[in-house]
Amino acid sequence: MRATVMFGAFDVRVEDVPDAGLVEPTDALVRVTHACICGSDLWPYKTMERTEGGHRMGHEAVGVVEETGADVRTLKAGDVVVMPFAFSDGTCEFCRRGLQTSCPHGGFFGISSELGAQAEAVRVPLADGTLVALPVGSDDASIPSLLTLSDVMGTGHHGALAARVGPGRTVAVVGDGAVGLCGVIAARRLGAEQIIIMGRHADRTALAKEFGATDVVTERGDGAVERVRELTGGFGVHSVLECVGLEESMATAIRIARPGGAVGRVGVPQEETLPASEEAFYDNITIAGGAAPARAHVEELMADVLGGRIEPGRVFDRTMPLEDVAEGYRAMNDRESIKVMIQV
Amino acid sequence: MRATVMFGAFDVRVEDVPDAGLVEPTDALVRVTHACICGSDLWPYKTMERTEGGHRMGHEAVGVVEETGADVRTLKAGDVVVMPFAFSDGTCEFCRRGLQTSCPHGGFFGISSELGAQAEAVRVPLADGTLVALPVGSDDASIPSLLTLSDVMGTGHHGALAARVGPGRTVAVVGDGAVGLCGVIAARRLGAEQIIIMGRHADRTALAKEFGATDVVTERGDGAVERVRELTGGFGVHSVLECVGLEESMATAIRIARPGGAVGRVGVPQEETLPASEEAFYDNITIAGGAAPARAHVEELMADVLGGRIEPGRVFDRTMPLEDVAEGYRAMNDRESIKVMIQV
Repeated sequence: MRATVMFGAFDVRVEDVPDAGLVEPTDALVRVTHACICGSDLWPYKTMERTEGGHRMGHEAVGVVEETGADVRTLKAGDVVVMPFAFSDGTCEFCRRGLQTSCPHGGFFGISSELGAQAEAVRVPLADGTLVALPVGSDDASIPSLLTLSDVMGTGHHGALAARVGPGRTVAVVGDGAVGLCGVIAARRLGAEQIIIMGRHADRTALAKEFGATDVVTERGDGAVERVRELTGGFGVHSVLECVGLEESMATAIRIARPGGAVGRVGVPQEETLPASEEAFYDNITIAGGAAPARAHVEELMADVLGGRIEPGRVFDRTMPLEDVAEGYRAMNDRESIKVMIQV
Repeated sequence: MRATVMFGAFDVRVEDVPDAGLVEPTDALVRVTHACICGSDLWPYKTMERTEGGHRMGHEAVGVVEETGADVRTLKAGDVVVMPFAFSDGTCEFCRRGLQTSCPHGGFFGISSELGAQAEAVRVPLADGTLVALPVGSDDASIPSLLTLSDVMGTGHHGALAARVGPGRTVAVVGDGAVGLCGVIAARRLGAEQIIIMGRHADRTALAKEFGATDVVTERGDGAVERVRELTGGFGVHSVLECVGLEESMATAIRIARPGGAVGRVGVPQEETLPASEEAFYDNITIAGGAAPARAHVEELMADVLGGRIEPGRVFDRTMPLEDVAEGYRAMNDRESIKVMIQV
């Protein structure tokens, strides 16, 4: 079958690889109909050391179940499913508490696991715990939005929960990528009163405003901190969604939170340490969040997608066939595209 | 009057200074009867750069109101009071929400403010918002425990709340100083099921067990992480109280928290960054806490002290007169004493 393989920085290709198939009795084989490229895929795209065999890419997918292992009970061939970026057993104490990313039997799709979703098919371990059947066909108009439940919409929602967004709260979203934009949707959905999007791409911040952002801050560093304080009566926001993962963006996130506020971090961290420890300490800023248990939020968010109340699929501004995946990486890395959907 | 002045590392003295007196109409003048030396005073004791004028020390006190400014309404001369380590107006939005350490009109006693409590008297700004009158005389047997509400008991309690301690939770307390020991009291009081004290001073961990600790871990670093996991079924604890403030202790705190757990940080941070960002991210560890709004907790904790349910004053293992304060610093720094009470 055809699948996306990354061999090193700026070298990602669609290659012939052995067909995916069942290995464990709890597996499902999913024929991918829609995948996408994630902002987090751009980190290895820019920095990966060259390897001979390469790494399989992609951790977000909608597809059709082709075949199920003997122990799979809740899915059958023909089901249209969404695949969260982590697989999980659905039964352990972490899964039961909605922290599927910490399932001791689970793991991640994409670069860290050799199970890549930017491909014609993907083996999904622990299918009962991982996949969610969709009540629509794979050609439904809602599919782009349902595809975001694999990762970016669930991640934005996780960040908003970690940042304790709620009715009447003031919120800032650091980063105008797809996760940041979904963070705006999530903040609005949870009742935030003021939502400040922080980014400098006019097309993205314009979309953020359509999603519910009330203010745009284009400054960075000290200027950003000053501007957010001006917009919030001098003290900063109750809730910050950190959707980048760099030290500078995290420092900004901590500094724009008002005393007693919270930062929900969902940008994949690119450094070993967190900055602004003293500021966070003296202002009692909570730093929460992390890898989002997207699986935990699929049903709740799906209801809003199908009810037409949210449309996170609008973050996809380009659609490409699988064979053009390299062009998709380039376009996202050059900031020509917010997020690329791969039609397989 | 006599007051404690620190001139540089390892050079702390009792000096003659101008008498404290009212400055603002919201001030109270408090004659100190009991003060103490804080673990946080040992950081400047070890590292302070020499200055000609020196810094006034001490931020914990019980005393008697001598005189009040014209605008003070809730206190009168003769009242026995406890003084939290921060002063605060009691009326702003942060004070009303129990975050008095972020009061925009407030500040800290001791080294950062020139208002030192290791002295015969101290001027207390914003007296109505800051001081709490005690229903006992200054010679009552409960005074040492009430004195801990100035800081260490309130700080331990704040750490426990930030770490989300509650009934049935497993807890680790990193650090066996006075704050850590009070953290054990707080965790027990909030219903924790298992309380692991992490420290290597036998006298302190023995006291921790009397306060309710169920396990003692003397290892550090990887060994500590392994031992805590062994004690908790493999995954670590729900709640960690970080009561030291060093990078190593914070890294341990993050690593012994189970996925989805929380670290309540109350050790004054000695570094600019927080470690283990990636571990915290992938395990969704919340890092909360900070400078404790001791004022917020005085009434609640006082009720338990006066009811005989907690006895945090047991952290004082030495009592000295004010003139011997230098010996008190030495004894605490050499770990001969957990915490020194100064009788003025």
